Amino acid sequence: MTSESVSNDPGRFEPVPPPDDAIRRAAEDRQLQLTKPAGSLGRFETLACWAAACQGVCPPGPIERARVVVFAGDHGVARTGVSAYPPEVTAQMVANFLGGGAAVNTLADRAGASVRVVDMSVDGDTDPSVSAHKVRRSSGVIDREDALTHDETLRAIEAGRSIADAEIDSGADLLIAGDMGIGNTTPATVLIAALTDTEPVAAVGRGTGIDDAGWIRKTAAIRDALRRARPVVRDTVALLRTVSGADIAAMAGFLAQASARRTPVILDGVVVTAAAMVAEELAHGARAWWLAGHRSTEPAHTVALKHLQLDPLLELDMRLGEGSGAVAALPILQGAIATLAFMATFDEAGVSTGDVTEADAADVD
Amino acid sequence: MTSESVSNDPGRFEPVPPPDDAIRRAAEDRQLQLTKPAGSLGRFETLACWAAACQGVCPPGPIERARVVVFAGDHGVARTGVSAYPPEVTAQMVANFLGGGAAVNTLADRAGASVRVVDMSVDGDTDPSVSAHKVRRSSGVIDREDALTHDETLRAIEAGRSIADAEIDSGADLLIAGDMGIGNTTPATVLIAALTDTEPVAAVGRGTGIDDAGWIRKTAAIRDALRRARPVVRDTVALLRTVSGADIAAMAGFLAQASARRTPVILDGVVVTAAAMVAEELAHGARAWWLAGHRSTEPAHTVALKHLQLDPLLELDMRLGEGSGAVAALPILQGAIATLAFMATFDEAGVSTGDVTEADAADVD
Repeated sequence: MTSESVSNDPGRFEPVPPPDDAIRRAAEDRQLQLTKPAGSLGRFETLACWAAACQGVCPPGPIERARVVVFAGDHGVARTGVSAYPPEVTAQMVANFLGGGAAVNTLADRAGASVRVVDMSVDGDTDPSVSAHKVRRSSGVIDREDALTHDETLRAIEAGRSIADAEIDSGADLLIAGDMGIGNTTPATVLIAALTDTEPVAAVGRGTGIDDAGWIRKTAAIRDALRRARPVVRDTVALLRTVSGADIAAMAGFLAQASARRTPVILDGVVVTAAAMVAEELAHGARAWWLAGHRSTEPAHTVALKHLQLDPLLELDMRLGEGSGAVAALPILQGAIATLAFMATFDEAGVSTGDVTEADAADVD
Repeated sequence: MTSESVSNDPGRFEPVPPPDDAIRRAAEDRQLQLTKPAGSLGRFETLACWAAACQGVCPPGPIERARVVVFAGDHGVARTGVSAYPPEVTAQMVANFLGGGAAVNTLADRAGASVRVVDMSVDGDTDPSVSAHKVRRSSGVIDREDALTHDETLRAIEAGRSIADAEIDSGADLLIAGDMGIGNTTPATVLIAALTDTEPVAAVGRGTGIDDAGWIRKTAAIRDALRRARPVVRDTVALLRTVSGADIAAMAGFLAQASARRTPVILDGVVVTAAAMVAEELAHGARAWWLAGHRSTEPAHTVALKHLQLDPLLELDMRLGEGSGAVAALPILQGAIATLAFMATFDEAGVSTGDVTEADAADVD
């Protein structure tokens, strides 16, 4: 695909249809017929109704073909002392994903999901099976230069879009984006701060105790990149070009297209959620197709979740990326669907409903 | 078993051994070798290390034989207007558990666990397959009479103990207690308030909006029962006799014996956690073998979790009971074990560790 064929117009994503509201109401009605006090399964009930609305069928079917796509890319800013890992780890971890040894592989195995890794911009050679979409080696040093060229940005978005299409065409019933790249929380934090007009100090993570010198370096890089981002914050493609990276731009295209294709998504941590904010700009309404899998320890993640009005399922102090926090939450969604699909109704089980209402239900457990 | 053969001495439970601390340290060391920044899986890491310590082996094995035992019983206090359900629902729900149609059945199926229901004190006839341990029909109206006789209390504790033994002897690798009984949050709240010296107003649930008249009736019943409980709060068997029920007394024996038999447990909501507080009195140190599966919406549950120093895994506004909140959390523990058992080490995967420390790790995801 050449740059001419990809317009700069966010409207090039198909309009995002909302999940099916009539089906959601049917699912809510069914919840009231199941052998439990109304509302007593809490968020399990709303989750299951959301799944039904996404699938357009009540009761919803099980999620058996969930697919994780890990977008790998290096970031020039990692060389400025914002990370303690050497950049070669990104390529090494790509091999680890292929070998099934990373956290997300083991969690996906448990949940019946599968994992694919794509090299968007790793600063080194990776297996040919994962490098077909590669845009460049590493992205730019965003506190002083653009992450990508305009053409690279469009190619990366398009790669994410075509990956989503391929996975959906292959039968994926839920998609998860994962990230892998040394230093990638820095562009993610810049994107979130730019799109929410947040000061760096409120967004930069200290994790469990990054030392003062490291925090100062990272905050300065984010401040400088943010200064470069602000003039282009209303132009989504220009924003990605200026302060993201090919991995993040691809994730944004992937998440926007998943929604356009009516496919539910569980979001992971700060990097994926930064891409999700961009995807919502590319394809308004996309967020209706997303769950937040967890809340990471990075402050910018909480800023982004609030902006997207998403309430995370898990709060377990995870901060790994790779899609791990999203896959960790997948069994919760699967369990919620199972209750709506397989619980007996009051009629089927011959259980009296009494005069139970939502207001009374708290007495019964 | 006659009352003579069961002493009133809490010491009749075998001393509870702690989970294996050397194995826990070995698991913590292994976490540092796995291909992720130290600490980046958050509570997944501590969970997996706890599982290893409970099993006495590192890496821990998968949990494939988790067993849920639902203790069903009616409560005389339900007739005083603290619940909107008619008591016959308890027996109907016992049949529903047997038929596989309750929430906990569907969640257990998803997690590879199995469900057993036992009738301890249902106010009606149940299937002979579940009534072998039945102590009586319903427990007393605790705001004005004892829940049980002394002998019934001991028989109920002993039933719970022997059920735990039978399940462990049959190969259960994790136990979950569930509750079913109209009105059972009232005795649970009384037990928690008595053992933590909490005023009724701070413990009684309004749920999502129980009406004022119902809340006043429930609070008055709890206040009166609490007045009856306070003189015997130091005598665990007498406390169970006065204000619990055969179901709760059995759960206490079950949970105490699980720990004595070195078997991990995931706790459910307010009723099970009330029984757990009693079990900790019967068998000090038992709580080291427990995870809190979730935080329910009942205020007394939070009081009990704080007392037991347990931090729940899920906070999803569940308040059903049946063990549903514990089974919902089981996949989290299973996922955590999978990461510790199956992730590649840095050496195996050929991944550089850099100079990464806990302090730096937050930069990488």
